[in-house]
Amino acid sequence: MERLPGFRDFYPEPLPHNDVWSADARQHIFEQWRKVARRYGFREYDGPPLEPLELFTTKSGEEIVGQLFDFEDKGKRHVSLRPEMTPTLARMVAAHERNYKKPIKWFAIPQLFRYEKQQKGRLREHFQFNADLIGETDPAADAELIALLIDALRAFGLTAEDFVIRLSSRNAWQDFFKQGGGDPANEYEFFQTIDKLERNSPEETEQKLTALGFSAAAVNDFIAAGKPTAELASILENLAARGLKDFVKVDYKVIRGLAYYTGVVFEAFDRKGEFRAIAGGGRYNNLVKLISGGKVDLPALGFGMGDVVLVELLKARGLLPKFDSPMDVFVTIEDESLRGISLKLVQDLRVAGYAVDYPLVPTKPDKQFKRAQELKVAHTVRAESDAYVRIRNLKTREEVVAGFEGVANHLG
Amino acid sequence: MERLPGFRDFYPEPLPHNDVWSADARQHIFEQWRKVARRYGFREYDGPPLEPLELFTTKSGEEIVGQLFDFEDKGKRHVSLRPEMTPTLARMVAAHERNYKKPIKWFAIPQLFRYEKQQKGRLREHFQFNADLIGETDPAADAELIALLIDALRAFGLTAEDFVIRLSSRNAWQDFFKQGGGDPANEYEFFQTIDKLERNSPEETEQKLTALGFSAAAVNDFIAAGKPTAELASILENLAARGLKDFVKVDYKVIRGLAYYTGVVFEAFDRKGEFRAIAGGGRYNNLVKLISGGKVDLPALGFGMGDVVLVELLKARGLLPKFDSPMDVFVTIEDESLRGISLKLVQDLRVAGYAVDYPLVPTKPDKQFKRAQELKVAHTVRAESDAYVRIRNLKTREEVVAGFEGVANHLG
Repeated sequence: MERLPGFRDFYPEPLPHNDVWSADARQHIFEQWRKVARRYGFREYDGPPLEPLELFTTKSGEEIVGQLFDFEDKGKRHVSLRPEMTPTLARMVAAHERNYKKPIKWFAIPQLFRYEKQQKGRLREHFQFNADLIGETDPAADAELIALLIDALRAFGLTAEDFVIRLSSRNAWQDFFKQGGGDPANEYEFFQTIDKLERNSPEETEQKLTALGFSAAAVNDFIAAGKPTAELASILENLAARGLKDFVKVDYKVIRGLAYYTGVVFEAFDRKGEFRAIAGGGRYNNLVKLISGGKVDLPALGFGMGDVVLVELLKARGLLPKFDSPMDVFVTIEDESLRGISLKLVQDLRVAGYAVDYPLVPTKPDKQFKRAQELKVAHTVRAESDAYVRIRNLKTREEVVAGFEGVANHLG
Repeated sequence: MERLPGFRDFYPEPLPHNDVWSADARQHIFEQWRKVARRYGFREYDGPPLEPLELFTTKSGEEIVGQLFDFEDKGKRHVSLRPEMTPTLARMVAAHERNYKKPIKWFAIPQLFRYEKQQKGRLREHFQFNADLIGETDPAADAELIALLIDALRAFGLTAEDFVIRLSSRNAWQDFFKQGGGDPANEYEFFQTIDKLERNSPEETEQKLTALGFSAAAVNDFIAAGKPTAELASILENLAARGLKDFVKVDYKVIRGLAYYTGVVFEAFDRKGEFRAIAGGGRYNNLVKLISGGKVDLPALGFGMGDVVLVELLKARGLLPKFDSPMDVFVTIEDESLRGISLKLVQDLRVAGYAVDYPLVPTKPDKQFKRAQELKVAHTVRAESDAYVRIRNLKTREEVVAGFEGVANHLG
C-alpha cells in the first residue's frame, strides 16, 4: 500500500531512500523556529487542521474550493483541511482578543493542505512557520515582524549573502494606480499583472498594462526608482538600527497575489534566485473584521515560511546537519548473569538524562561493540559486578573502573 | 464563525476561557515525550495525516469506516484522516525495514481523528505519543517498551502512587479458552466479553460466558489467581531489575478490544480510577505482514498515550506547571532619541539567546514598567546613552550601569 501522492513520510536518519523526508531535520527546523519566536516574545497557538469550509471561502472567495481537500462530514457539515493558517488565527483572535494585551504576538507551525495539480516536486502538504502581530498599525510592528523573519532564517546559518527580504507596499502601488488615473474597479487586475511581471513575457505584460491604461515604461520606471514610501523608510530605518540593513531591499516587483493584503508586503528569496520564495507576508488590516463578521476590528500583519523550500535551500548551502548519532552510551552485557544489574545501570543512566542503548537479548561481544560504533556513542559502559562498572571512552580508548554511583562523572 | 465540534483551539496562557486548551501545556507534554523517547533510543518518524482508506480497513475491517473522517478526494481516491498511527507505521516499516537495524525503536506524536458520537468532553481529535518496537519476539522487548511507558509518565512527576500498568496476555486467555474447550470460532467474541467485564453487569457477562460454554466462576477464579505466564514473569523480572516493580501488576481483566493483538497487552491507569485509560498497547506480531501484503513479516509491539486524559490527570494532581512568564528581559525606552540604540540592544540580547520585549511605539514609563511586570521578566534594561545601559533586577531592585558589551554578565 502506498501513501497518497503529494504527501510525505518522515523517517529517522540515515534516510533509506531519496523519496522520503528526514523526521530529524523537520524537528531541527521546528526547534529553531520556536527558539527564535520565543526570543521575540511570540507565543505559540494552534487550531484544528479541519475547519468549516466557510472560514476559507469567506476570506478567499469560492474560487479557492478547487484547491482544497474539502468534503461533507458525517454530520453534513461542509469542512476542509486548512490550506493556510490566517483564517483560523483571525477566528481565534476575534473570539478572545479581550483577554490578551495588544499587540498580540503569536506563532504557529501548522501543517497545511492544498489539492495542487500533480507535478514533480509539487507537494499537497507542507509545514509552515506562521508569525503574526495583531493590534498595532505603526510600521514599528512591520519592522519587528520582518526582524523575526530575518533572525528565523539566520538561526539556520543563512547570511545576508544567502537571502534577502524584498520589501514592497500595496499603498505605493495604490498611489501609483490612482495617480495614473486607473479605474478603481480594475485595481485588483492591475495588482495581478504586477504580481506576474517576473513570470509573464514583457509583451504580455505590456498588453495587459495598456488595456488598463498604463504604459509599461511608467511601471518599469516606478520599479527601477524603488523610492521608499514614508512607511517603508521608517521600516528600513528601524531595521538598520538593529544592524539588519543588509538583509532587506525595496523591490516593487513584489506585490503578492492574495487580494487581502492592505499595506506593506514582502517576500524572502535566496540571493542566487534558485528557489521559489522562502517566505512571504504583509499587512492584512481588514481580515479580522471580515472573519468576525464586523465584531472585532484589529490591524494585523504576518508571514508564513514553509518547510519545503527551506529544506531545499539549507541542503544546497550545506547547512542541514546530519542527525545520525542520537545515543550517548551503549551498555554492553557480556556476562548474562549480570543482565539484571546491567538493566539497573541502563535505567539509572537514562534517569540521569543520558540516551542509552544496550543489547535487548544475549548478543556476542563483537556484535555489541559494532552496534555501539554504529550508534556513534561516546562511551560504552559494562557492569563488572554488582558494585563496579568499566567505562570506555571510544574516542580516546581510555578505560576507567568506577562504582555504580560514580558513572556519570566519567561520561562528561 | 465557530470551530467544528470535537476539535480544539490551543491558546497561549493564561487561558482566556475554560473551553480552550493550552498551547504551552501541549508543547510541554510533547517535549517530555520526546526527551524520554530519545533516552530510550527511540527515533522520531511521522506519516501523512491523510491516508488511503484501505490502509485502515485492511487492519480493522469495514466497520471502522463509520468512525472515520473519510471522503473522496478530487482525484476520486477514497481517503481518510488517520484514526490511529499503527497502520501508517506498518506501511512505512514494510517499505524500508531493510535499511534499519533491528530492533527498530521508533516513536511519533501524531494528531488522530475519529468521528465519535458527540458527547460532553468527547473529542474528535487528540494527539498521541506512539512508541513501537519492531523486530524482536523476546519478552525483553516488551519490558523495554513498558519501561519507556513508565518513564514517560514519571517525566511529568507522576509516581507509583498515581498510576499503575495493568499487564495481561492474550496468550494466557487463549490457553484458558482452549483448555476450557472453547470453540475457536468464538474466540474473538470471548475476548470481547472479557474486555467488557468492567463495563457490563455481572448478569450480562455470566449470560454471555454461559453461551460460550464457560462459567463465570472459572473466569473469575482465573482473574483472581492472576498467575503470570512465563512470558509475563520474564517481563516482571526485567522491570524489577530496573527498579520499576511498583509500577506494574498482572491483571487479566485487561485484554484490549482490538482484534489484532497477539500476545502481551497492557493499559496504564490512574490508581484512583478516576479517568479512562492513560495509555494502552501490546504485541501485534501479524500486522506488518498483513499491511505489507505478506512481503514483510516482523514481530512488533507498541503503545499509544493520548494527550487528553494525560492533561486531565496532571491537572487533577497539580502537576501541570503554569506557563505564563515566557520573557527574560524588558527593554524600556523613555527617551525616544535613544530608540535606535535601544533597538540594537534588543537585537543583541535576542541574538545572545534572551527572550526580550520592548515598547513597539512611544509609551509612558509607568505603562512600560507595568508591562514588564505583567511579562514577569527578571530584568529591565534601559539604554542611557549610545555607550551605557542601566540594568534593573526586578526581584532584588538592584540597579547597575554597564557598557553595551557587558549587559549579559548582569542578567545571570
